[in-house]
This record gives sequence, structure tokens and C-alpha cells, in this order.
Amino acid sequence: MSKDLYLGIDMGGTQIKVAVVTSKGVIEEETVMFTDINENPSKVLSSVVYLASKLKNYPKIKSIGVGIAGDIDSKRGIVRFSPNLPKWKNVQLKKMLEKLTNKKTFVDNDANTAAVGAFWLDVKGKSQNLICITLGTGVGGGLIFNKKLYVGASGTAGEVGHITIDPYGRNCNCGNRGCIETFVGAKYLSEYASKYLKKNKSQILDKLTGKKYAQVTPQVLSKAALLGDKSANEIWDRVGEKLGIFLSIIINFANPDTVVLCGGLSHAARYFLPHARSEMKSRAFKSAQKACKIMVSKYTHKLGVVGAAMLPKH
Amino acid sequence: MSKDLYLGIDMGGTQIKVAVVTSKGVIEEETVMFTDINENPSKVLSSVVYLASKLKNYPKIKSIGVGIAGDIDSKRGIVRFSPNLPKWKNVQLKKMLEKLTNKKTFVDNDANTAAVGAFWLDVKGKSQNLICITLGTGVGGGLIFNKKLYVGASGTAGEVGHITIDPYGRNCNCGNRGCIETFVGAKYLSEYASKYLKKNKSQILDKLTGKKYAQVTPQVLSKAALLGDKSANEIWDRVGEKLGIFLSIIINFANPDTVVLCGGLSHAARYFLPHARSEMKSRAFKSAQKACKIMVSKYTHKLGVVGAAMLPKH
Repeated sequence: MSKDLYLGIDMGGTQIKVAVVTSKGVIEEETVMFTDINENPSKVLSSVVYLASKLKNYPKIKSIGVGIAGDIDSKRGIVRFSPNLPKWKNVQLKKMLEKLTNKKTFVDNDANTAAVGAFWLDVKGKSQNLICITLGTGVGGGLIFNKKLYVGASGTAGEVGHITIDPYGRNCNCGNRGCIETFVGAKYLSEYASKYLKKNKSQILDKLTGKKYAQVTPQVLSKAALLGDKSANEIWDRVGEKLGIFLSIIINFANPDTVVLCGGLSHAARYFLPHARSEMKSRAFKSAQKACKIMVSKYTHKLGVVGAAMLPKH
Repeated sequence: MSKDLYLGIDMGGTQIKVAVVTSKGVIEEETVMFTDINENPSKVLSSVVYLASKLKNYPKIKSIGVGIAGDIDSKRGIVRFSPNLPKWKNVQLKKMLEKLTNKKTFVDNDANTAAVGAFWLDVKGKSQNLICITLGTGVGGGLIFNKKLYVGASGTAGEVGHITIDPYGRNCNCGNRGCIETFVGAKYLSEYASKYLKKNKSQILDKLTGKKYAQVTPQVLSKAALLGDKSANEIWDRVGEKLGIFLSIIINFANPDTVVLCGGLSHAARYFLPHARSEMKSRAFKSAQKACKIMVSKYTHKLGVVGAAMLPKH
């Protein structure tokens, strides 16, 4: 008996991943191309479809799902704006792909496809209420409630990066102050670290950066922490503390069974997650924290493409 | 054609409200009895059923719904603990009522029944995603997502009163610090007001309280604000500011189409809501705040009993 197959497309600013996925979220076949951000969307889509059509299982796919960063109208499948793809403005992505392929197409933003991907890859579909938090340059989030994507009244539900942690903290790009993103977003974190190092000596970080403190990326901070650097560990402790406060808010409000952390910064989880857990434990409702498993995704780079393929199920 | 009717029971610490409600949430008939908190649960339930059975439409009801404060296992209909009814510990409420009445019975906590009540009374069922916030001695909440009660993994979803507003604020009874409840819960608000008045003179409040500042209840603060008292208005402004921060967190996270404020403190909304709205507007995502109607319930005292009756629909 042949199984149902789904095509997923993860439109990144650097590369476009394409995969054929089973109804259980398992990748059968995958391929990738570089993103030409200066090309017109219609040409890019033609290339993607051509690439996909070369996959052995392409004729068997039931539908297509696309994940893309930015302001997406998922109901109508329109890309209003994508920060990584400046030429993509008000693009009728669903319509164009359906015309090119004659397959039903689903479109959503990358935070939602990551959540769907985590639901299938990290917990194998065994969750009722999962919150996926992408820790990268910014902080994004996707919500799966009762096994379905929950997008809210205007499609912005799950914008967890702009939950206030310190009402009088620094200004955030979103217009608010003291959002969690202003503490743990990679850009803000690097800024904080470079300021911190001007006040606090660190031989290890001096060596790793050549005293160019503007280059204190999360990767460098991880390396320093691994080498036992006190300053780096203090900076990670602060990340853990703020994430712990943030997690307690989310857990008290939504009582999820699973929180999955993904994105670039999640690779450094060993340096901040123990502290985040203990801070969360000191704050959240006992029964809610007991019911919630916090985990780091093992599939960060595949969540988008698998989640895109699985969109029709959510 | 006869219409479907549902019985609602709102078990309060002072009185027990009983009503027969239509499938649109309209009360057809209602009655009330005082709560004897020293009586055994089984005797109380017998009295309630006797009272209900005297209602003209009782023979026509399809099911029974009960709302009660405390730690409720809504799946099994067990009252683990109720703060207002000290004798009610691990009471098999659903089982007992089904035995007494031979009607299918639903049980949930009062924050959830209030949310269901607001869904039917305040927006007449015209909402997809509604958050109901009860502002009383404490701060409670109920969530309706995709027209259904969302209770989370262990039934504590919507505990909005314990969302952190100030991570280093005063200790809350829940174990966390700086929860919204520690700013706007009636007890904490009175405490804050009495401290405030020791530092700031107010002729009007001196007169209203006889300088007994321990008696500065929200009602007294409302009266003073109505009379134009500067101190009372400053205290209400602070309530508005904190609620605005809190609302922005909720709106950024859950993107509801409706937020309903109810409970005792909501009667003073004219003194704090304008400030709360402007604070929220300066913080929340523009599209999310545009999509969200914030309203004060016009039915605070009926939400519980109507919401209880309508539980089978959610």
C-alpha cells in the first residue's frame, strides 16, 4: 500500500530546502538550493518547482506546504513582507504555486512551521499543547493547542518574543520595552556582552575576540563558557534567568505539555538552560510546571521543511 | 417546537445561584439560596437539587453545569479543594449530582464558567478567541480558543493572575514575585493605598475613612476618585498602568478578538481602564491590538450561573 506523501518548502534567506515527507513527518527525500534574493519571486518559484519535480516521489505528493519568515496571510497564502527576501512584497504565493503545480498549497510563517515541525520530529505527534520558541537573532514562537496551530484573531498569536519581562527595560524594535527579545535575542545579547566586557575583565574572551568586543557572538560566548570563563558564564546565567521568568509566564498562562526550544541560540542550551529551569521552577505553578516538558530540539535545521510539509494536518 | 434548556448552578461562598438557560445563554428562570458553608456537601447538594426541581422548566432540562471556585478536576467532576467551602474536599460532585438528578453533569472552576458566561452574555457567542479576566480579591482568567474552553495540560491554563509584571516585585502567595495580582488584586490594592496615604495627604480619603487607612477598599477609592481626589486618581492610574502592561502581554501572546473584564474591581473600570488602554496601546503589536476588543462585562453577577449551564457546549 502506498503511503501519503507531502512536499515541504522552507524558504530561507540563504537557502531553500525542499523535502518529501510522510504522514508521520519522516523525510523520505530532500534537496536544497541557494536563495537568489535579487531574483523575482515568480522566477524563484519556477526554479523551486523544477527542483522539486526532479525528486523521485514528487508525482506522489498530495499537497505542498511553504514556510517563510515575515508577515504572512496564511489564510490566503500571501507573503505581505519577508525580511530576508526584500523582493517578496504582497506575493500571491499560494495562487502562484497552485498554478505551477496543480497541487493544493499551504503557506505559513516560519515560526508556525517550526512549531509543526517540532510537533512531528521532537515529540512524534505525541502532544496536545506544544509551544515552540525559536531563539535566534529575534525570538519567535508558534503555538499548537489541541493539536492544531493556534494563530489568533489576526494571525499574530505566539509572538512570544515581545512578551514583557521588564516593563521599564530598554526599548525594543517592536515599540514595547523590556521584551524577552531585548535580553536574549542574539543581537541584543552580543551588545550586552560587549558592554559587560568593558567593565569586567576576561582573559579568555580577550583572547577569543582579540579584544574586539563587538564580535562577542553567542558562539564565542559558548566557547568561552566551555573553557570555564567566569564572565561568559555570568552572561549565560543572565540569559537563563530571563528565560526562566519568560517560561514561567508562558507556563502559567498556557499550561502546555511541551515547550521546545530551537534556533541558533538553542545550541548553547547547556550554558543557560539549567539556570532557566531553576528560575522557572521558583516561579511557575507547581502542577503546571510538573505537566510541562521543556526540551531542546534535536532537529533545528529540519523543523521548517518538515513543518511546512505537515501544514495541511494543522 | 420546544427549545433545549440547561440548568446552571453557581456555587459561591455566600450564595448558590440556580438558573434554567436557553441554548443561546438566555436565562429563562432563576433562583438563589444562601450557602451554609458548615453543612456537608451531600446535604447542600440535596437542597440545591430540591430548589432546582421547584423551577417550572426543571423537567425540560437536558443537563446540569456547576461552577465552583478552587482546584477542580473538570474531567472527572471532582472538587479537590474550594477556598470558600472548607468542607468541600475531594467531593465527587459530578457523580453525586448525576445520581440525585439522573442528568448528565459538567463541573468546572468559576474562572472558566465566567469565561463561558461572557462568551454568551457579553458577545452573544460572536467570538472565536475570548479571554475573560476576573478582577476581584485575586485575579483569575478563563480562555476560550476556537470557541472552546482551553484548559491546558493539567487544567490550569488561564491563570493570568500569576503572570509576572515585575520579576523583582513583592512576593505573591503563589510563590512567584510581582504577579499582576500583587498590583491589582483587591487585598493588595488596599494595602498599597493605605501605605500611599501615610505618605500623601488626602482630605477626601481622610474624611471617607475617618483616617482608618486600613479601610481603603476599592469602593472607597472609587468614591474618592468620583469626588476628584488626586491621591485616589493616582492610585487608580497605577492600577491602569499595570493592567496595561499585563494586557499587552496577553494580547501579544494569544491575539484574542475579545478581552472581557469582570469581577468586583471591574465596576471601577472608568477610573483605571482609559489609562490601561493607553498603556496597552503603547506596548502591544498594532495588528493584534486592532483585532482585540476590550470590554467590561455588563453581567458580572450572572456570568457564573449562565456559564455553568452552557459548559456542555464548550
